[in-house]
Amino acid sequence: MMIALECPACGNAYPLDIHWPFCPLHGWPLLIHYGAKHRRIRESAGSIYERYADFLPWRRFDPGLSLGEGGTPLLPLHRLAAEIGRPGLLAKNEMMNPTGSFKDRGTVVAMTMAVELGFRSVGTISTGNMAGSTAAYAAKAGLKSLIYVKDGTSREKITAAAIHGASVIKVRGDYPALFKRSFEIGRARNIFFMNSVDPFRIEGYKVAGFEIFDALGPSAFDGRRPVRIFVPVSAGGHLIGLIRAFFDLKEMGAIRVPPRFVGVQAAGCAPIARAFVRGEAPVRRFPRPRTIAHAISNPFPPGGDLALRYLRAVHGTMSAVTERELLRAQTELASGEGLFCDPASAVTLAAARKLGPGHGFDVLVLTGSGLKTVEDVNSAALDVNERDLDNL
Amino acid sequence: MMIALECPACGNAYPLDIHWPFCPLHGWPLLIHYGAKHRRIRESAGSIYERYADFLPWRRFDPGLSLGEGGTPLLPLHRLAAEIGRPGLLAKNEMMNPTGSFKDRGTVVAMTMAVELGFRSVGTISTGNMAGSTAAYAAKAGLKSLIYVKDGTSREKITAAAIHGASVIKVRGDYPALFKRSFEIGRARNIFFMNSVDPFRIEGYKVAGFEIFDALGPSAFDGRRPVRIFVPVSAGGHLIGLIRAFFDLKEMGAIRVPPRFVGVQAAGCAPIARAFVRGEAPVRRFPRPRTIAHAISNPFPPGGDLALRYLRAVHGTMSAVTERELLRAQTELASGEGLFCDPASAVTLAAARKLGPGHGFDVLVLTGSGLKTVEDVNSAALDVNERDLDNL
Repeated sequence: MMIALECPACGNAYPLDIHWPFCPLHGWPLLIHYGAKHRRIRESAGSIYERYADFLPWRRFDPGLSLGEGGTPLLPLHRLAAEIGRPGLLAKNEMMNPTGSFKDRGTVVAMTMAVELGFRSVGTISTGNMAGSTAAYAAKAGLKSLIYVKDGTSREKITAAAIHGASVIKVRGDYPALFKRSFEIGRARNIFFMNSVDPFRIEGYKVAGFEIFDALGPSAFDGRRPVRIFVPVSAGGHLIGLIRAFFDLKEMGAIRVPPRFVGVQAAGCAPIARAFVRGEAPVRRFPRPRTIAHAISNPFPPGGDLALRYLRAVHGTMSAVTERELLRAQTELASGEGLFCDPASAVTLAAARKLGPGHGFDVLVLTGSGLKTVEDVNSAALDVNERDLDNL
Repeated sequence: MMIALECPACGNAYPLDIHWPFCPLHGWPLLIHYGAKHRRIRESAGSIYERYADFLPWRRFDPGLSLGEGGTPLLPLHRLAAEIGRPGLLAKNEMMNPTGSFKDRGTVVAMTMAVELGFRSVGTISTGNMAGSTAAYAAKAGLKSLIYVKDGTSREKITAAAIHGASVIKVRGDYPALFKRSFEIGRARNIFFMNSVDPFRIEGYKVAGFEIFDALGPSAFDGRRPVRIFVPVSAGGHLIGLIRAFFDLKEMGAIRVPPRFVGVQAAGCAPIARAFVRGEAPVRRFPRPRTIAHAISNPFPPGGDLALRYLRAVHGTMSAVTERELLRAQTELASGEGLFCDPASAVTLAAARKLGPGHGFDVLVLTGSGLKTVEDVNSAALDVNERDLDNL
């Protein structure tokens, strides 16, 4: 199978240049174009990577580069479902990936391509989860890794990347400018910078979509009941990847109607939700971002325009939730369902609640573990006391 | 199937008293005795709980009480295997359980029994991982939870439990005395205290053993090649449960030779390893425990004597490793294999290295995520720098 890059805006094809995977005409992220004509699910195959091999860019999955990502649970949330009046409420628990976030889905694909393409070094820029994921998979692959993090990133997140042997550099300066600069450095030093909307990462994110399809079955997508998938949105790559999974499934006739995706942002940094509501394009930089949901605090998302186009194609929507709503949702998921996620993941429940009662399936994609953002939990709301042993 | 309790020292049977599951004659932890005569693996069944239903104490597995625990990867560690000269080196990554530790295996079984037995409240005492696990599963089950933690437990671990709605009480006083006191409180207030060597927890830990058997296959246990399973040991319950899995498999003829288990402790708190070396019984309290591996820092383990008896039955051994060795192992697992575990898990690699080169299978059971003990990582050893964007 020959792969190339393609601009989703103009359809132009480009050779694979991983050092600047954006359309020179439009600036949109380039996506993988598969040469093969007749792609299909390999029904007899065992693992998810074998079943969906026609839809992934690597020559082959190498178990030696995997940390056992994927296969995450899709859990019914009975208690919260009853409370918000949406009986089909489910959580896709992406926190259970090896480094505690969905990023591992994309990293394993990008890292495998780095090895196939002969790179010895990889890099990324990150506010947290991507750093730990990229550093861990680079260690597994035996590649060097260079991680640029925003000045002010917590010591916990820096340690969780650096312990894998990564070189971590805290960068003072504008984050979108750093995004561009990292690709220049990558080209100059032959480092594969696998950043947020990397085309291989996006293909990796599809796999969670395939798992949701496998778990719910084709009948869920026959158009009788709505299926909604709620996804926290930062740069846009994750949402784009998940929607692409259902484009693939539709293309081969496995489903009739793709899910209505709901992209969710914090109101304090909602450039894509704002553009969606106003019908604006392109997405503009969000002034003075301010939210505790750091993992989705990207004021100028490089995949924003493409995310909007894809959302419209599946009759999806964008939602923005307040800090109060997302913090409440974080507590509800932990105390009602036993799921301790980060504030960025909790926006999905807040958005589902806003819809009011309804039927069908509602899948909340919980993207990151609460263990990496423990300092953001409001400890005043917790029931913690001290006692002497004799006085219990 | 009727279950009862049985003393592994004297064989006496006792009715189920969850408020003090210890032999009144010997003080040993009581274990589950299954009434059924002909237990077998249900080969046609799908999930691990269905396949091994004859070996688990619940009436039935209730998916509504599960957070999707288990099914963790068994990963080959090629790089470290080559380095230490043990080509069959593998990691059973128990960090990938829902709350980031192996405890979830036991908690789901104990919590299901709490529901079957009609309890409305559960409790535990914990230095960290057990707190988060018990609180999360109680939330999922809709039960109240009461968690006693040692005074001095980190804010991160307390938050990770309290966010699930648990009442967390930091207790000043002797930890072994608190263990006993908690059961008295449980009896007085009708709270099921599912502590470290709870008989249901131990049955839950067996499931990881069944998974290792399923992954390696019966031929690995035919006696031609040694199979070693390295397990960090604190109270003893985890090791006891894993060995019991292979007792079950031997009893039904599925294996010929059980693995040689290696229980591992930190030299700074090694009551069971010390007793093993000296041939002493019973295990005595370890004076002045001092180790960074907090999750296995139990100076007077309630399952110590039973762990020793079980170990001898499988020709196993105990090992103790220094702080220097375990910290080195933690860094090696992260930088060599992409696995960021806590110091308590890392003792397994340190113990395997001590054996020198050898053949067969060596399974390191990595019990807990490094994300809960980030503050214990030696940041001086990390490659972290600061730069201006213009100066990259």
